[in-house]
Amino acid sequence: MASQTFVKTRLMTPGPTTVPPAVLLEMAEPIIHHRTKQFQAIFAEVSQRLQRVFRTEQPVLTLSGSGTTAFEAAQISLAKPGSKVLTIGAGKFGERWQDIYDTYAEVLGLTENIKLNVPWGQAPTADQVDEVLKANPEVSIVTLVHSETSTATACDVQAIAKVVSQTDALLLVDGITSVGTMPVEMDAWGIDVLVTGSQKALMLPPGLGFVALGERAQKRLEEVKPRGYYNLDLRKWLKSWQKQDVPFTPPVSLIRGQRVALEMIEAEGLENVWTRSRLLAQGARAAFVAMGLKLISDSPSDSVTGAFYPEGINDSKFRAGTRDDQGIHIAGGQNGRGASWKGKIFRISSMGYVDSGDMLAALTAIEVQLIAGGHVIKPGTALAAVAGVLQ
Amino acid sequence: MASQTFVKTRLMTPGPTTVPPAVLLEMAEPIIHHRTKQFQAIFAEVSQRLQRVFRTEQPVLTLSGSGTTAFEAAQISLAKPGSKVLTIGAGKFGERWQDIYDTYAEVLGLTENIKLNVPWGQAPTADQVDEVLKANPEVSIVTLVHSETSTATACDVQAIAKVVSQTDALLLVDGITSVGTMPVEMDAWGIDVLVTGSQKALMLPPGLGFVALGERAQKRLEEVKPRGYYNLDLRKWLKSWQKQDVPFTPPVSLIRGQRVALEMIEAEGLENVWTRSRLLAQGARAAFVAMGLKLISDSPSDSVTGAFYPEGINDSKFRAGTRDDQGIHIAGGQNGRGASWKGKIFRISSMGYVDSGDMLAALTAIEVQLIAGGHVIKPGTALAAVAGVLQ
Repeated sequence: MASQTFVKTRLMTPGPTTVPPAVLLEMAEPIIHHRTKQFQAIFAEVSQRLQRVFRTEQPVLTLSGSGTTAFEAAQISLAKPGSKVLTIGAGKFGERWQDIYDTYAEVLGLTENIKLNVPWGQAPTADQVDEVLKANPEVSIVTLVHSETSTATACDVQAIAKVVSQTDALLLVDGITSVGTMPVEMDAWGIDVLVTGSQKALMLPPGLGFVALGERAQKRLEEVKPRGYYNLDLRKWLKSWQKQDVPFTPPVSLIRGQRVALEMIEAEGLENVWTRSRLLAQGARAAFVAMGLKLISDSPSDSVTGAFYPEGINDSKFRAGTRDDQGIHIAGGQNGRGASWKGKIFRISSMGYVDSGDMLAALTAIEVQLIAGGHVIKPGTALAAVAGVLQ
Repeated sequence: MASQTFVKTRLMTPGPTTVPPAVLLEMAEPIIHHRTKQFQAIFAEVSQRLQRVFRTEQPVLTLSGSGTTAFEAAQISLAKPGSKVLTIGAGKFGERWQDIYDTYAEVLGLTENIKLNVPWGQAPTADQVDEVLKANPEVSIVTLVHSETSTATACDVQAIAKVVSQTDALLLVDGITSVGTMPVEMDAWGIDVLVTGSQKALMLPPGLGFVALGERAQKRLEEVKPRGYYNLDLRKWLKSWQKQDVPFTPPVSLIRGQRVALEMIEAEGLENVWTRSRLLAQGARAAFVAMGLKLISDSPSDSVTGAFYPEGINDSKFRAGTRDDQGIHIAGGQNGRGASWKGKIFRISSMGYVDSGDMLAALTAIEVQLIAGGHVIKPGTALAAVAGVLQ
């Protein structure tokens, strides 16, 4: 590998992920105006295809911005004044949603931001949520991360949704690295709000955020008096959506590209996409374990897989090695309130436009760099392990 | 023209505007991660080139979203609690900035939203602003639209900035259809905040909003206590900008494309771009007047030109005609509080990637459709008039 002078780039970071060439080319088409029948048809098709990916018959709104924009809009548009909120933290992103309600507590008139913190690498459980909700019937919102990217951990959304749906609280699920990768059944599981971004499993560049609103959430929107947030007021977006429109000039080229990416997902079949992502993640986990690495999660997600570095491996050198020698871009760790994993872990994605060939290349690069860093394993260990899963 | 079966599309709407092929192709390049040296170099170059287009040595922040996102962020991040704001309305967009402060009045603790309304088609003057500010020394923000797209009207920003700079108020200028089209000298004129979007003169698809912050605005940011608005809090964006970074996953492909579009602007020379846009707008105005049309503005902008329909011309039929027969997309009118111009006017843009050939094609299409609708003019009237300007 070291003598190879042609290096092909593979983006294995958990977002942004690789965008398929067909999508890139669609976005390179001449720009069209958003107040035209041509754009309206594209937007309508995107909206309908999103519903099928979100497994919902309810509106899926397309906002300009990032996944954070979309989740923040949901948080501030739906919290009831005079109520408490329950924010579940089990990693960097869960902590971000906690921060957002801290930031807005006064403006939204919240009486308490109850933070349920779970150690990084563990998943919050339905029992834990149930306990807090029983003790705090005035909770109006529960925020939950389905697949916590920073810890490569997935929780049992279905079980937690069952608990929350028996209360007056709405469940806001961050599906940013789960929608389009792992089974998420918005309607069947009774999820009130499901959010994702364009730059993960939906195979687009960053720039769009999506918010699906269940019936209870739509009802809440009518009940809660607007408290500002012009751009982030979901009422505006829902009202426009009902006319298959957008309230502000939308990123038309991204929306065009999204149509093609969603078409690709449906052509493959959403369940097949889930299976592919799961097998790739299982392969990664098997390879990591075979190479003697400790996984960062007790409850691994199928969208991203992480491991602690073994003794003696330097994070910067390791990731520069996979990138420069083998073209494999992987992510390091993040610091948050619950843990400081910068320099201690690395993570690879199995979301979106990635196949077994990409995963084999990535795992080989990781093995080569581990060996180069002094970790004693037999060459071929990773591939032998992953072959058992993928074949 | 009617026998022509090949129709080339020309987007002459005042945003989105045509994106140059070189920019489209750049955006079709494989996606890169935003936490890489490669992206940081692109972002740093975009930031520096933006400063030259904004004519400022101060930070120009790149936000995800539309121009509205950027202006809203400036409005809510900079207003002082317990103060008044002065919002100048002379068209649809000026009214939007009025609406935003109405929406936020309570949350921001504003004591009054003073609305200075000027009839549509007229420009607010420095004297009018001076009068209000003298009577209301507690105004902390003045919002002003430089080029009001809905009325094709430009105001004297330099004179108004001079008045505002003598007070404690900050001047927030909506330069969405002026920056990159008309002379705007942020530093020399003493503009505190200058905002634009990507989809006008900056020749990109919609999806980015830009906020330039002068020294007084940066100081105000430090003084005003954060009141929420996680995504729209300019403090976050400024802090990241100082590290040549962004606080949330950015639309990397749009930012890549922006680099190329800004390079094109500098290759042509910003003053040459201004001259080109001015000549195209002058040509359009001369042609409209020669065809017996009444301009919608007493103080015309050089970015967009509008005229009232003559007797008997049907808006939908007229614009469908230019679009379907000649491939020329033009805009109709908008309704607001100050006027209802839907169906009564049409507008064409001279912003961004448009040359004299495009303008000649557009004006010819307009003439053809006016004649087809029963307006009596001699064929060739438009071209004869525009030739006098462009040659």
